[in-house]
Amino acid sequence: MRTSIATVCLSGGLVEKLHACAAAGFDGIEIMDSDLTAADESPEEIRALCARLGLTIDLFQPLRDVESVAGDVFADNLRRARAKFDVMQRLGATMILLCSNVGTATEPDPDVAVKQLGALADAAAEYGISIAYESLAWGRYVSDYRDAWRLVKRADRPNLGVCLDSFHVLSRGHDPAGIAEIDAEKLFFLQLADAPAMDLDVLTWSRHHRLFPGEGDFDLTDFLSHVLRAGYAGPLSLEVFNDTFRQTDVTRTAAHAIRSLRWLYDRTAALNAWTDEQLDAPQPPRAVDFVEITGDDLSSLEQAMQQLGFVFGGGHRTKSVRLWRAGEANIILTEQGHGRDAHLAGLGFVVDDARAAARRAVAIGAPPAFRRTRSGDAELPAVSAPDGTGVYWNSNSAANTWLGEFEGGDTAGPTSLSGVIDHLNMAHPWHEFDEAALFNTSALALEAETTADVPGPRGLVRSRVMRTADGAVRLAMNLSPPTASTLPSHVAVRVDDAIAVAERARAAGLAFLSIPDNYYDDLEARFGLDPQLLGRLRELDLLYDRDAEGTFIHFYTPTVGNLFFEIVERQGAYDGYGAASAPVRLAAQRDHGQS
Amino acid sequence: MRTSIATVCLSGGLVEKLHACAAAGFDGIEIMDSDLTAADESPEEIRALCARLGLTIDLFQPLRDVESVAGDVFADNLRRARAKFDVMQRLGATMILLCSNVGTATEPDPDVAVKQLGALADAAAEYGISIAYESLAWGRYVSDYRDAWRLVKRADRPNLGVCLDSFHVLSRGHDPAGIAEIDAEKLFFLQLADAPAMDLDVLTWSRHHRLFPGEGDFDLTDFLSHVLRAGYAGPLSLEVFNDTFRQTDVTRTAAHAIRSLRWLYDRTAALNAWTDEQLDAPQPPRAVDFVEITGDDLSSLEQAMQQLGFVFGGGHRTKSVRLWRAGEANIILTEQGHGRDAHLAGLGFVVDDARAAARRAVAIGAPPAFRRTRSGDAELPAVSAPDGTGVYWNSNSAANTWLGEFEGGDTAGPTSLSGVIDHLNMAHPWHEFDEAALFNTSALALEAETTADVPGPRGLVRSRVMRTADGAVRLAMNLSPPTASTLPSHVAVRVDDAIAVAERARAAGLAFLSIPDNYYDDLEARFGLDPQLLGRLRELDLLYDRDAEGTFIHFYTPTVGNLFFEIVERQGAYDGYGAASAPVRLAAQRDHGQS
Repeated sequence: MRTSIATVCLSGGLVEKLHACAAAGFDGIEIMDSDLTAADESPEEIRALCARLGLTIDLFQPLRDVESVAGDVFADNLRRARAKFDVMQRLGATMILLCSNVGTATEPDPDVAVKQLGALADAAAEYGISIAYESLAWGRYVSDYRDAWRLVKRADRPNLGVCLDSFHVLSRGHDPAGIAEIDAEKLFFLQLADAPAMDLDVLTWSRHHRLFPGEGDFDLTDFLSHVLRAGYAGPLSLEVFNDTFRQTDVTRTAAHAIRSLRWLYDRTAALNAWTDEQLDAPQPPRAVDFVEITGDDLSSLEQAMQQLGFVFGGGHRTKSVRLWRAGEANIILTEQGHGRDAHLAGLGFVVDDARAAARRAVAIGAPPAFRRTRSGDAELPAVSAPDGTGVYWNSNSAANTWLGEFEGGDTAGPTSLSGVIDHLNMAHPWHEFDEAALFNTSALALEAETTADVPGPRGLVRSRVMRTADGAVRLAMNLSPPTASTLPSHVAVRVDDAIAVAERARAAGLAFLSIPDNYYDDLEARFGLDPQLLGRLRELDLLYDRDAEGTFIHFYTPTVGNLFFEIVERQGAYDGYGAASAPVRLAAQRDHGQS
Repeated sequence: MRTSIATVCLSGGLVEKLHACAAAGFDGIEIMDSDLTAADESPEEIRALCARLGLTIDLFQPLRDVESVAGDVFADNLRRARAKFDVMQRLGATMILLCSNVGTATEPDPDVAVKQLGALADAAAEYGISIAYESLAWGRYVSDYRDAWRLVKRADRPNLGVCLDSFHVLSRGHDPAGIAEIDAEKLFFLQLADAPAMDLDVLTWSRHHRLFPGEGDFDLTDFLSHVLRAGYAGPLSLEVFNDTFRQTDVTRTAAHAIRSLRWLYDRTAALNAWTDEQLDAPQPPRAVDFVEITGDDLSSLEQAMQQLGFVFGGGHRTKSVRLWRAGEANIILTEQGHGRDAHLAGLGFVVDDARAAARRAVAIGAPPAFRRTRSGDAELPAVSAPDGTGVYWNSNSAANTWLGEFEGGDTAGPTSLSGVIDHLNMAHPWHEFDEAALFNTSALALEAETTADVPGPRGLVRSRVMRTADGAVRLAMNLSPPTASTLPSHVAVRVDDAIAVAERARAAGLAFLSIPDNYYDDLEARFGLDPQLLGRLRELDLLYDRDAEGTFIHFYTPTVGNLFFEIVERQGAYDGYGAASAPVRLAAQRDHGQS
């Protein structure tokens, strides 16, 4: 697979875009004319820089609105085109993208388009240039890739073919099965973009909301399968117009972009059983092995954990790391925060083959992470998530591997609190949300639930849970609004009897997040709860939810640094997270949250 | 006119929302149930606080999905409703909003809805509560206000009426003329919201993109005219769900909100010729009187102005203020930047009646600004724009008023550079853009041109020109992307011969913003320019545009502090701003912009 990316996906000037693409590992690039026009460097300099960086210029995009026009307009269009062919010769680019006419088309007769495309191709041939003709979803007369192919076929020039763009095909709901009808040698170029399902006009949708593959709702695996089965042999190129990526760090976006292509190609190879092409298979984790929290001073977190019923599991034999346990829930504390407050620094997952899981993540583009060990310590292959969180994989249960590295714990057996990690709630700045979601899909093999917006006092918080099918591992991702400082993360521990845990913790002096009385009046109105239960909830500052499947009781500790704990109890088959209570929690944290 | 606002329009907790609404001058509020639920304060405390602040609780919104359901579901809905009626009694609220059922409606028969609305009204009557029934644009069976009115009429209860919401009517394209059919005493409540024209599903559009009146594309003046002519006598209430306002400063948003209502009511009164209700009439300015630039050190700006051909117009006789002139263009420099870089600090406009213009702006809600004068100085009534820029009005030409306050200038007659202020380009942070646009409409009587997105190296820049019909005054507003620092502003001076000005300025040693060679290759491709003209443009770093109406030649000085100058020449009836060159300018400023 050769990879390519359009320069419009990235922020900055052309030269820095080229450096970022090369650093990320792309094989080539598509240059949008406006990027060249705004650059100080001459086409010859850009050509030489690409050569040094090992990037091919796969496509140049300088022309719009050429065909299906009156004769005098076409004559001027041909003049424009020749001027751009000159630039392409200086640039060393040999393929031009031509989008179907949007703005100036006046001649609906396909014969006119065929004749003008042919004439343009003949002019291009003088320069050794090929033309990839693409139907835009909002093209005036040509807005379906099958129509573009009909015109190209009729024009019948060796240097005239089609460019397929997943957005233009899938946004219109066109069936990609028709790609099989296109002659393989006429499939000149392929542009890939994902997008969220939106009921929005296709032009605005395309210009502002495209996403990298795996981040939206299009079935790109199916689409790419059709294209590759039809015999396409060119690069897979990303063309993603996105308001966010246009303004975020170019190096980071380029690295993010190539991970999406690698993930997509691997899924497509797996779907088609191209066994020699595949990465290690995705392994949805079987369980959370541990959660690592780091910070300068974690003593108040340790106190809260003990008040909740966690048991001290020992100190690490070679590192200043402490373990706290609640049944199956292992929390590792590392007091070396480098001046930072308490935060979620690492996640361990149990999988069948830890080395393969890490190999896959690295192959997709995650940087390997290092775990300092001494002889006898467990091997936990690891990578860094995009936000810097360490991700560790373990092929065994904790008891069989790293648990023995901890010494001096209170007990070797089950702790007094029988718990398990229910979910982890991680906050991401708005411009890193999609990147984190792609990592969770591609490297962690999690699947996304529907995204929800939760109103908080500082703005809407976008929330998306990514999970395994069985719910054993759930990462709830929160997107912080631009004006807000990053929201805290939290670790939710599931217990059998949240009320009993709350009572014990309260008796031990733990102050929970304070919940307003009005909330309980509202609970009564919504659910008509038993007065005794309502009284217990109110007294203990517990939150409650109920749906057709079951019941959810939960509460929160105050926030320490950038982190807090949640204790949850699921009754019946309740599978949610108490979303209806989230606005109350967000408001309470703002008023009373910090311990 | 009584004014009201829904608490969902604002950020923060309920108590701070109430304080902000009172400070802005609202008469009442609508409380969204979720705001009360999340508040620590009891309903009795909120009631007492509202009483102290002089706010009436005009509406409470705690119920959804009540009518058109099966009998057992309705019984539970009635129980829910009674629990909320209890809360309302504690709150002292007497009107409830009921939206047409979206989620649980199963009975399409209108008889069921009529019967259940009647039963709900009877229950509410026991508590002294009225019900305002509103058709949501995406209601299951009721999504047209005329259907809601039919049900209300048939249910025929004294405490059951309709609530009209401009969004739900206008987003569906329903004709507001039908409002005349509703009995005046059944018009219980009115919610107002504007919105941009979008081809987006109506639910998403409503939940995220509503705007305050005057900031979107709805004809609210016409809508409100229909409602008031039909006999509505309740408050005008804002219900604006907007992702931005949810996260911005609550005091500022409340002040912003009430300005939109005052503007809307005034326009409606003017449309209907309710002469006793109107503010001073809007006065589109006849010209820009002066531009004031402030900063700690303006010497390099002065040098650039002299190199461009501006003439020193003298020092102010009582203040450390200097005047530079180029024909009709007056630039006033004040070197008291309080540690800030050069920035645009004030704008003077010529109008027929300066006092009336200022009176109108103050009545709408702009804070009056103070101009220190001594006896004999001109009277220039002034207000502060939302971003702090001073806005001054002058009933005379400069020559007749303040020009005589400056002494020791180089010349009293016309300057060597014959110029006029063509436009001012002002940058606004993304979350203050709509507020600034409303100020330009309501206080400055400017009208908006179409909004455009310009790709820059740090993201898309949204650009909207607000102008007088004759083009004598044009403010180009730029919205900076969230990750970018604020873009610089600029002052564009129109001259008769931009090439001659550029040559003189170049000879005087002024370095213009450097434009890449590739830009000129692109110009040639686009326009097939005369080689001699192209050579001059290239040599002098001039930008060029052409359309069916005429030609535009322009260039930029380097940025000083937060400001730069543009020199423009308009040939023929060219009415644009060289938008096609803007990406090149933005890229060049990033690379070479700061002097």
